[in-house]
Amino acid sequence: MALLDEREESSMEYSLYPFFEGEEYFAFAEPPTYFGLESGAAFGPITVNYQTYGKLSAEGDNAIYIAHALTGYSLVGEPPGPHKERGWWEPLLGPGKALDTNRYFIVCCNVLGGCYGSTGPSSRDPKRGKPYAMKFPVVTIKDMVRVQKRLLDYLGIRKVLAVIGGSMGGMQALEWAVTYPRTVESIIAIGCSGRFSPNGIAFNQAARMAIMNEPAWQNGDYYGKEFPGRGLSLARIIATITYRSNESFEKRFGRSLQNAENTNPFSFHEQFAVESYLHHQGEKITHRFDPNTYLYLTKAMDLHDLGRGHSSYHAGLKRIRGTVFLLGISSDILFYPGEVRGLAVDLRRCGVDSRYEELKSPHGHDSFLIEFEQMERYLKSCLEEVENNRQH
Amino acid sequence: MALLDEREESSMEYSLYPFFEGEEYFAFAEPPTYFGLESGAAFGPITVNYQTYGKLSAEGDNAIYIAHALTGYSLVGEPPGPHKERGWWEPLLGPGKALDTNRYFIVCCNVLGGCYGSTGPSSRDPKRGKPYAMKFPVVTIKDMVRVQKRLLDYLGIRKVLAVIGGSMGGMQALEWAVTYPRTVESIIAIGCSGRFSPNGIAFNQAARMAIMNEPAWQNGDYYGKEFPGRGLSLARIIATITYRSNESFEKRFGRSLQNAENTNPFSFHEQFAVESYLHHQGEKITHRFDPNTYLYLTKAMDLHDLGRGHSSYHAGLKRIRGTVFLLGISSDILFYPGEVRGLAVDLRRCGVDSRYEELKSPHGHDSFLIEFEQMERYLKSCLEEVENNRQH
Repeated sequence: MALLDEREESSMEYSLYPFFEGEEYFAFAEPPTYFGLESGAAFGPITVNYQTYGKLSAEGDNAIYIAHALTGYSLVGEPPGPHKERGWWEPLLGPGKALDTNRYFIVCCNVLGGCYGSTGPSSRDPKRGKPYAMKFPVVTIKDMVRVQKRLLDYLGIRKVLAVIGGSMGGMQALEWAVTYPRTVESIIAIGCSGRFSPNGIAFNQAARMAIMNEPAWQNGDYYGKEFPGRGLSLARIIATITYRSNESFEKRFGRSLQNAENTNPFSFHEQFAVESYLHHQGEKITHRFDPNTYLYLTKAMDLHDLGRGHSSYHAGLKRIRGTVFLLGISSDILFYPGEVRGLAVDLRRCGVDSRYEELKSPHGHDSFLIEFEQMERYLKSCLEEVENNRQH
Repeated sequence: MALLDEREESSMEYSLYPFFEGEEYFAFAEPPTYFGLESGAAFGPITVNYQTYGKLSAEGDNAIYIAHALTGYSLVGEPPGPHKERGWWEPLLGPGKALDTNRYFIVCCNVLGGCYGSTGPSSRDPKRGKPYAMKFPVVTIKDMVRVQKRLLDYLGIRKVLAVIGGSMGGMQALEWAVTYPRTVESIIAIGCSGRFSPNGIAFNQAARMAIMNEPAWQNGDYYGKEFPGRGLSLARIIATITYRSNESFEKRFGRSLQNAENTNPFSFHEQFAVESYLHHQGEKITHRFDPNTYLYLTKAMDLHDLGRGHSSYHAGLKRIRGTVFLLGISSDILFYPGEVRGLAVDLRRCGVDSRYEELKSPHGHDSFLIEFEQMERYLKSCLEEVENNRQH
């Protein structure tokens, strides 16, 4: 396994972030082969960091693929080894849970372009012997999905019961259904749309500018040098505002001051509780995320369009064969519930079996990572329906 | 008029921006006096740049004060001299218009802390002989209003038929009604609330970070040196997203590319039309606004709370005697229409004569600077009602 060792070394050497114990790797597009991208560029090798939960059935018919969101990773449930990090959907995954590890074989990988062990801008460019940085090619949601398909092929999975994801993960689920209609029996896509809105592009543009405006960013060549943390921090703050809602901020913070007794409100220090919260969110991300990955993944979101590569948007939608479960979030300001509902309507017009439901929460876009009880009921009912359909 | 000359010189010397021809100045808090601020700080002298339109009646009963928004200025209508700049409400102001210069005496001044001729961070600190920069005291909406009251006293205006403004201008109008209830017969406040929301504070925080993150900002001491334009530009882009709406962006740009034929979508250049638009908005502001003023005025917005200085929020509202006309904007994501409507309800509960109407537009918060036909009808009907009430 010389190749795997080499890959691990190259990842470990340059990655800024700790990996989870017990994680697994798969690699492809080894020389002399390459992985061709939607842009026309081709590169390799590609390393894929992934996690699995449960066991693949003898019939190979119980696989679920989970796609993570922008700053997520392959750790969906409990970590395989002792580790302080928790999976981002841990309350939903385990024996008897919606993502029932007694019934399903669950797979999630870190996306192409990511910074949690899969090949991304912080990985070593074999041609240059140093991190790709901004020489990394622009990748798309479809490219991510095509990498995930390679992983499922490698794992011996021919048919997927469901692809499930929220936000950028929902984009991947939808792209799965369009790109591999015969592989996907259903998708469950939460807080996302069929093509990213100009409003979403605008917020991503602002976040990228925050990173690129920082001198320490150095056109992306900051590895081993000063970390452009202030820019990443601001990018995260901008994004976090769009992940929550005014109602959520009103409920949690209102206009209260942080350390009210000792605070002079007439100053430029971040003294409102909401400012302190956002400052903390901005600070936290700098310990766990690569700014260049932030640039590449937001660009992939901007380019999300189920019609690209097909004769029209509707031609893209018409390719879907499985059932599409769409969940809008009542207070979402990044993917307005009306937009998600609109996709359900478009899909039905295109002859696709689609359902729309709405998660009621004041907490905005991030509700799919917060409202676990509603998510548990929702995922359970969707998966039950998929299994019932299968039996008939 | 030695003092006035000195003030003019000090303003002209340090201000980054051209003034309008024919503009007027008023000054107060000359040594040895000072102007006391809400924070407890005191400073002076204070120069106020203002414009007037129409004539004050012999009875002195036809004055309207117009309060400008964050990056606005005293030029509401046609410039008094030849000038390429247009007034920000020019279509609404003139003979026979809603802001009828045949009937009303209309006054607007650049706010305290501004950068269009009134004393602000770019003005010379007489104690240090150089611009205040971040030594400028934190000012509030109430401080702005108290300066405006001095101006009206100076102009011989004892009673104001209406104070009118949108956004930060609406905050000033509301504060006028609370601080000087006996002076104000009515206010017309558009797209604003009685205390700024945590969501609004969050967006302002991000905008300030964009400026303060830029090395050229130099803790505010950039006058005569490199201009921190990239930070200001990003601040403006963040704000502009909140001034528009997804619906507006969808209608105007959708996902279309700028120069579609020559654009490679798989790159980090700003290639979506919405990105190009925002980039342009960000670039434009750097030619006409002072970054430190941006910091001070957003902080003043954050501190906006009609209850501060009174025993409670409702105690503040209860002080109001005149009629309060509130106009929400259907697609506003900075001041949700529900928030504006909520203020109208609160005011009625506090015994204040208040009305709520909604401007229907897809263009978001900025609609009050775009939907001139609706604004014309609305302002006309409000002012007619105020005049009718007066006659009875």
